[in-house]
Amino acid sequence: MGLKFCFIGAGNLATHLARALHTKAGEVVQVYSRSLSSAEVLAEQLDADSTNSTSEIVADADIYFVALKDAVVHEVLSKIDFQNKLLVHCSGSLPLSVLNVYSENTGVLYPLQTFSKSREVDFSLIPVFIEANSERNENRLIEIAEKISCKVAVLDSAKRKSLHIAAVFACNFVNHFYTLAANYLADQEIPFEVLHPLIEETANKATEMQPKQAQTGPAIRFDENIINNHLESLMEYPELKELYNSISRSIFELHQTKE
Amino acid sequence: MGLKFCFIGAGNLATHLARALHTKAGEVVQVYSRSLSSAEVLAEQLDADSTNSTSEIVADADIYFVALKDAVVHEVLSKIDFQNKLLVHCSGSLPLSVLNVYSENTGVLYPLQTFSKSREVDFSLIPVFIEANSERNENRLIEIAEKISCKVAVLDSAKRKSLHIAAVFACNFVNHFYTLAANYLADQEIPFEVLHPLIEETANKATEMQPKQAQTGPAIRFDENIINNHLESLMEYPELKELYNSISRSIFELHQTKE
Repeated sequence: MGLKFCFIGAGNLATHLARALHTKAGEVVQVYSRSLSSAEVLAEQLDADSTNSTSEIVADADIYFVALKDAVVHEVLSKIDFQNKLLVHCSGSLPLSVLNVYSENTGVLYPLQTFSKSREVDFSLIPVFIEANSERNENRLIEIAEKISCKVAVLDSAKRKSLHIAAVFACNFVNHFYTLAANYLADQEIPFEVLHPLIEETANKATEMQPKQAQTGPAIRFDENIINNHLESLMEYPELKELYNSISRSIFELHQTKE
Repeated sequence: MGLKFCFIGAGNLATHLARALHTKAGEVVQVYSRSLSSAEVLAEQLDADSTNSTSEIVADADIYFVALKDAVVHEVLSKIDFQNKLLVHCSGSLPLSVLNVYSENTGVLYPLQTFSKSREVDFSLIPVFIEANSERNENRLIEIAEKISCKVAVLDSAKRKSLHIAAVFACNFVNHFYTLAANYLADQEIPFEVLHPLIEETANKATEMQPKQAQTGPAIRFDENIINNHLESLMEYPELKELYNSISRSIFELHQTKE
């Protein structure tokens, strides 16, 4: 008899995690979302039930996975009786302890990746971080996580939060800079594709050398000619200009300090 | 008879370009650098002469490639008589016209990539942008560039400068964020390696989808719980806190506007 999972949430993370767990680690029997259509889209891929009503959440799942926006976790979970089943959230920023009031068996399963619904990912390469309120629950979650990922580790709430902050810089802020570059190039009628090899090499360098050693460009050598020249060119882009200025300073200052 | 090249400059870009051109497109006969040891290190790899004296620069090269920090270009070039040989700079930010006073035959060959001396690159995948003061010189440079890269295009000075600005965002600023994330994780005793799959996927997404569509994380949905929580955690990192705040705002504002 396999494990039965209930998913509370049907966003990017829930979609990829539920698809990875389904069949490999158990069976997703139900998907809840505040938006019925979101619940339906995910449930259909898993041949599961869907609902947008907390009162319809099944009582007989073995594990309840919560992948909701942090702000609505309490609002949703407070309406559900989990009968002390294993209740697991997937948030980088929330501590394990937020689940204490809803069940006596709690855990965290945090996959560190950027998920978009439309894009396939190889889940086996994604680092998955586990925390639980007992050794037994920890072992249950490790066993499940190891069925979908080769990179499973235990990490406490404080370190998970630090990791999430670092991920915001290395992923969300990085992607925003790709977007700003793409929009700026579109304005100048230059195709964004010409930056692709640079984007790839920049990422490859950071994973194959220390990123501090990989830094290049005008800011690290504080080449004022180029910097001032670029700032002048950005006159009509006040936001880019301000970011250009503050980040160039940050780069220069960081590299002034000795290794 | 192959072409003879003289390199003025021996930094990261000069090193990779000279190595790519050597034997494939001609022969690098001499490397000049203000630092004799830098000139020697590169010259040795090419079996070329080296010098740190402008008066010793050979007169019989067919093309002189200039890969110097923008700020010293004039200081160095004004001491050399190029006898109207083809004089080519490799800078994203300098216009072609800066070379007018030094030769009647001028051009630009700008490879768009981040180069570190210690790291090999496949030059054939690097976009190379050409500009020249005559059709003849443009064709000479295109012919040379096509011997080392599959992605050669003509681009004028104004657009090359825009491209360089976009590259600063998509590479230099991006790498700085990797560095900030790495330093922060080191402080929290978490290995930076756990971010590698995220860094790679973030870059892959940006080249396979529109980066704006690929954006994830708390800022895009302005999840104030997470954002405030993270800002509090960064209390002892004022610089990270300020960047976190300003870039989160920038993300949120950009995604408020319709496609």
